[in-house]
Amino acid sequence: MSRSLTLAAAQMGPVQRDTSRDEVVDRLIVMLQDASELGAELVAFPELALTTFFPRWHMPLEEADHFYEREMPNRYTKPLWDEARRLGIGFALGYARLGENGQRHNVYHLVDPHGETVNVFEKVHIPGHAEHEPWRQFQHAERHYFTPGDDFPVSEAFGGIVGMALCNDRRWSETYRVMGLQGVELILIGYNTPLAYAPDPTQNPLQAFHNHLVMQAGAYQNGTYVVGVAKGGFEEGVESLAQSVIIAPSGQIIAQAITTGDEVIVARIDLDHTRFYKTTLFDFERYRVPAAYRRITEQRGVARSGDGV
Amino acid sequence: MSRSLTLAAAQMGPVQRDTSRDEVVDRLIVMLQDASELGAELVAFPELALTTFFPRWHMPLEEADHFYEREMPNRYTKPLWDEARRLGIGFALGYARLGENGQRHNVYHLVDPHGETVNVFEKVHIPGHAEHEPWRQFQHAERHYFTPGDDFPVSEAFGGIVGMALCNDRRWSETYRVMGLQGVELILIGYNTPLAYAPDPTQNPLQAFHNHLVMQAGAYQNGTYVVGVAKGGFEEGVESLAQSVIIAPSGQIIAQAITTGDEVIVARIDLDHTRFYKTTLFDFERYRVPAAYRRITEQRGVARSGDGV
Repeated sequence: MSRSLTLAAAQMGPVQRDTSRDEVVDRLIVMLQDASELGAELVAFPELALTTFFPRWHMPLEEADHFYEREMPNRYTKPLWDEARRLGIGFALGYARLGENGQRHNVYHLVDPHGETVNVFEKVHIPGHAEHEPWRQFQHAERHYFTPGDDFPVSEAFGGIVGMALCNDRRWSETYRVMGLQGVELILIGYNTPLAYAPDPTQNPLQAFHNHLVMQAGAYQNGTYVVGVAKGGFEEGVESLAQSVIIAPSGQIIAQAITTGDEVIVARIDLDHTRFYKTTLFDFERYRVPAAYRRITEQRGVARSGDGV
Repeated sequence: MSRSLTLAAAQMGPVQRDTSRDEVVDRLIVMLQDASELGAELVAFPELALTTFFPRWHMPLEEADHFYEREMPNRYTKPLWDEARRLGIGFALGYARLGENGQRHNVYHLVDPHGETVNVFEKVHIPGHAEHEPWRQFQHAERHYFTPGDDFPVSEAFGGIVGMALCNDRRWSETYRVMGLQGVELILIGYNTPLAYAPDPTQNPLQAFHNHLVMQAGAYQNGTYVVGVAKGGFEEGVESLAQSVIIAPSGQIIAQAITTGDEVIVARIDLDHTRFYKTTLFDFERYRVPAAYRRITEQRGVARSGDGV
């Protein structure tokens, strides 16, 4: 193993609405220490890790301000930054960010073992809806609360090339490919996925299948490791998919959470293993045919040639 | 079920080098009749169905001419066309085509129940190599024998929107997405996949997993049915993956071959079922972010921003 890295995914059980950030950060620190004892050099935490998944309620933006972070680290999260630096371990943390320009993004913040920011990713594919939809048992108003990002950057970090995505991003093949085209070797993905999908309940029993299917395919088709890390359990009465995983470039699951609560899973990976796929079947330079892909960037929705495309 | 269609996949056992086209067409007709008895309105046959998978040998193109078809139907295949028309059943047939312009394509020919051509698809992603590579136990010289196509067109046929792909095309997420962006509801895929992948034998035990993974992900991520139909068994000493399947827009396998020989599988599908996915989670117009996808068409191989992209 020539580019060995020990990775952890720190799955979280629910965070209720009245749970304080201090309590949450205490839980994160316990898992950080646990991961460090297991030899982890990098720990991925879930999407919106510091608060409850507040898009399940529709409220005026001003009333939701307290769910967003204005700076990072802040007084609540500084103990996490400090402990990680003390342990010499990097981490990725998901939270809602309210920028100085007033923009609201669902972000994933990657921090190196020295406590320095590597990158802050802004979620691109915002699911759900913007208006209040009273027919739903609970809301999924992410499009009310967040502006979409428009890039999947990668960074040289942890001895390899690392990218990030959040939740719904993982269902879109473009997410993996855009990073694959930058040579990504490890993609960290935090998610919150309610088991009940109101627009089509026939999908409910398939949530765990779909979750692994898309991440395994994205890993294989781009020759990259993928870490998917969830919140699980009943949060404010809504049950979320746990099923956190670490996936190899083969698409095989090499570590998997088995509870729906706070749980650390770990895997030692070899970033050089990505070359098996990147230099053979998925040698992009040799085999891709961009001329055939034009619709992917030239159109957003469905259109036939007769529709003027 | 408002747009019901009964589909068959007619998997084939091996076709040896000295097997005549007459013998092959007899086998195809037996499966066509079998599928028709099961109520099928459309039968998908494999890639390069009429001959052995000749890219396993590297020979001068002129010596390989007899593996290509110059017109279709021709005197060998006319009985298949005639029987299909008599039964009122459509079909898709894979073969090597030598055009009047001298171009050589690996094609998939879709024929309607009246014996009329719906479309002829030219394989886009040509795997393997162009030069003779003597270190291999057998060659995979498709890049010597075939010019790549550069489009994934769809057609209105069989009550829905139908697209095609061949073998290696199925491993590329762009294949499904380009057709998904044209509203495809059913993708037919013929394939020949040797179990031994010489450039990286660690992939050998994963062939069946990868085969289903990519087709299930492509179906789910685009809300389309997918039919994957193989040649299986030992052909000229080379063992091929069978594992033909019919996959629903949920990504679930709804019919699967269990042998490695000639075998017909059938499923009655409802093309309207595609709407469950196309109008919810994968409502492209609502959720896609093409600005984030530019690399997919602007670059072919891996490049970082610093590389001038």
